[in-house]
Amino acid sequence: MPLYIAVVGGTRVGSGAALLAEEVGAEIAGRGGILVCGGGQGVMEAASKGARDRGGTVLGILPGNDRSGGNPYLSLAVATGLGDARNAIIARTVDVMIAVGGGYGTLSEIALALKMGAPVIGLKSWKVEAPERLERQIIYCSTAAAAVEAAWRAAAGRSV
Amino acid sequence: MPLYIAVVGGTRVGSGAALLAEEVGAEIAGRGGILVCGGGQGVMEAASKGARDRGGTVLGILPGNDRSGGNPYLSLAVATGLGDARNAIIARTVDVMIAVGGGYGTLSEIALALKMGAPVIGLKSWKVEAPERLERQIIYCSTAAAAVEAAWRAAAGRSV
Amino acid sequence: MPLYIAVVGGTRVGSGAALLAEEVGAEIAGRGGILVCGGGQGVMEAASKGARDRGGTVLGILPGNDRSGGNPYLSLAVATGLGDARNAIIARTVDVMIAVGGGYGTLSEIALALKMGAPVIGLKSWKVEAPERLERQIIYCSTAAAAVEAAWRAAAGRSV
Amino acid sequence: MPLYIAVVGGTRVGSGAALLAEEVGAEIAGRGGILVCGGGQGVMEAASKGARDRGGTVLGILPGNDRSGGNPYLSLAVATGLGDARNAIIARTVDVMIAVGGGYGTLSEIALALKMGAPVIGLKSWKVEAPERLERQIIYCSTAAAAVEAAWRAAAGRSV
Repeated sequence: MPLYIAVVGGTRVGSGAALLAEEVGAEIAGRGGILVCGGGQGVMEAASKGARDRGGTVLGILPGNDRSGGNPYLSLAVATGLGDARNAIIARTVDVMIAVGGGYGTLSEIALALKMGAPVIGLKSWKVEAPERLERQIIYCSTAAAAVEAAWRAAAGRSV
Repeated sequence: MPLYIAVVGGTRVGSGAALLAEEVGAEIAGRGGILVCGGGQGVMEAASKGARDRGGTVLGILPGNDRSGGNPYLSLAVATGLGDARNAIIARTVDVMIAVGGGYGTLSEIALALKMGAPVIGLKSWKVEAPERLERQIIYCSTAAAAVEAAWRAAAGRSV
Repeated sequence: MPLYIAVVGGTRVGSGAALLAEEVGAEIAGRGGILVCGGGQGVMEAASKGARDRGGTVLGILPGNDRSGGNPYLSLAVATGLGDARNAIIARTVDVMIAVGGGYGTLSEIALALKMGAPVIGLKSWKVEAPERLERQIIYCSTAAAAVEAAWRAAAGRSV
Repeated sequence: MPLYIAVVGGTRVGSGAALLAEEVGAEIAGRGGILVCGGGQGVMEAASKGARDRGGTVLGILPGNDRSGGNPYLSLAVATGLGDARNAIIARTVDVMIAVGGGYGTLSEIALALKMGAPVIGLKSWKVEAPERLERQIIYCSTAAAAVEAAWRAAAGRSV
């Protein structure tokens, strides 16, 4: 059974974040993982490209009503028609999540994943401080390779 | 761009409906279509098996919280966690739908697809009579090959 | 605990169906029920008006992103942002459903309600014929008063 | 048109947070606002009680399949059956959100609200630091009265 890894992040990104996301996608594909994303532009598109260029599989879970709204690197696209509520489906579907940068949409995906028990790896992404001590925390990494390595390790820990 | 075809139908089926669904899946794969289904048992599993045995791709959009609830023939699985509300995502994602038999869940998928503009092919499935004249109607077929042929034709008509 | 009754039906209706829906709404309010609807125009608006004019409570569960898309007779409005997937929430929330006329959206609400175990009363609405024998059936009535009477009786039967 | 205010927070809370949430609910009702919450226990129940005791209206948007899962202080309950995806509906429905303490579910509600353009008031709640500068920020308050005052002010600013 392959691992499903979400890559989440902003729609508009600088070239640095795009490069990082592309590397993350390539590393996931290199390990035989399924890359799951929101199917759109920015970090999603860069990660999708990285994975497809390495021969990987990319599943895009889109907010809109039309599959054609997805980026050109998706292997398969789901048109949810749910708007931002689709973030919960991404979090529910994956074994582990990697967040690259991102705005409030990304923060919601991080929070939903942690709520549902999926580990989250942060790569130049949100820092959060809970009002009380919580069991699960974002795991911070600073390179694409380290993030993907951490994702596999965390997913293994989850299933134990 | 490959066509996305939903195959919907009951979870519990007799051997006749299962065989029919398996043939539908095989025909879809033979034409290079992506088979989309609810990912579960019965008609969904039989169609998935038919497609995979022919080398096709099967996308399962599950109602539950866990990908492992899917049948063993899915290429990729989405765990929506939405219960029956996931029927709207199946209808939204596909270009055309084939219904094989089915209960009220299947009827909701037929109705949602027609509401959203996707043609529906009925194969030993629901008969419905609207209180007023409606533009779109279920297209009835009696063999798997005819249903898949009709699906391709109807999808082509949709995109024109 | 008050009963929650969905009134579903088409967005565009003739004056006959509108009058019928308004009577249904008034009867529901007269019995102290909570009227739940999709919050829009046509049958939804007429039923909402009927209930409010009798001092009743109307909960509108809207498909769009904005509460202001609702009709003016809602006591409370929920903006789901889910499009047609919100039909599943209406069916899930209520004890019983009354369908007045309607198109494919209404048919999906009828089917989802029956799938989830809520009785459905049909008033000049869809006729459906299942491919196999099913336990639950639409209960047909021909007047607003009879439909609301049947709704209360069916809901009582459900909770037993 | 009354204001709709979400009160979000953890299911398990200490007596301090519960008291705070109850005060928030009472202040909202005192100003004629509609309190929207997830319908459950903890902060949700305390805020609901505060509002109802002051004669206010409370709308509970539940994750489960059954209205009876809600706390006893709801005026109206919606059973979404969507699990955590219902958080997006709460954020979508309201004009403004007040977060009292909370875990990852609450953080997802905060993030979704800010994504959708609804101001968020934090009361002993999450601190977050974005990877880049964002336009909207959580507004921090330290008393229930100040939080509700800030909510009304922020909602007014939104509609301008």
